[in-house]
Amino acid sequence: MAKMLKLCRRYLNWIQNSVFEGEISEAKLLEFKHEAMLLMDEETDSLIIFKTRQEKWLDKEVVGHERQNLDTFL
Amino acid sequence: MAKMLKLCRRYLNWIQNSVFEGEISEAKLLEFKHEAMLLMDEETDSLIIFKTRQEKWLDKEVVGHERQNLDTFL
Repeated sequence: MAKMLKLCRRYLNWIQNSVFEGEISEAKLLEFKHEAMLLMDEETDSLIIFKTRQEKWLDKEVVGHERQNLDTFL
Repeated sequence: MAKMLKLCRRYLNWIQNSVFEGEISEAKLLEFKHEAMLLMDEETDSLIIFKTRQEKWLDKEVVGHERQNLDTFL
């Protein structure tokens, strides 16, 4: 689990619990998925990826506390 | 926390940990945010909403175990 979170942080920014976001190329995404598959138990664990091609197609809204520093975790 | 998860499940489908997804109208989303604000501590808790207007703009991919039944949680 800790290894998986570290892996996710190498490619993306942590936003909440086990949720990450970021801009990533197709090549980097493939590399990330490959590394994730090596770490996870594919029978029980899952990695769910939501992708959009254009950042403007996705709106993000934070209700409540907005985290200031993305790097205080792990 | 349990109340918040129940509230989320009233409006959306649970996908993983504290992550939910679903199609929701603007009116229902407002109602949901209003109810969430009543339950949460706005100093420390956060609810992060990613929205897209068109479902086709968002691709979802599951790596590893794909949950069969969305309703086995809680």
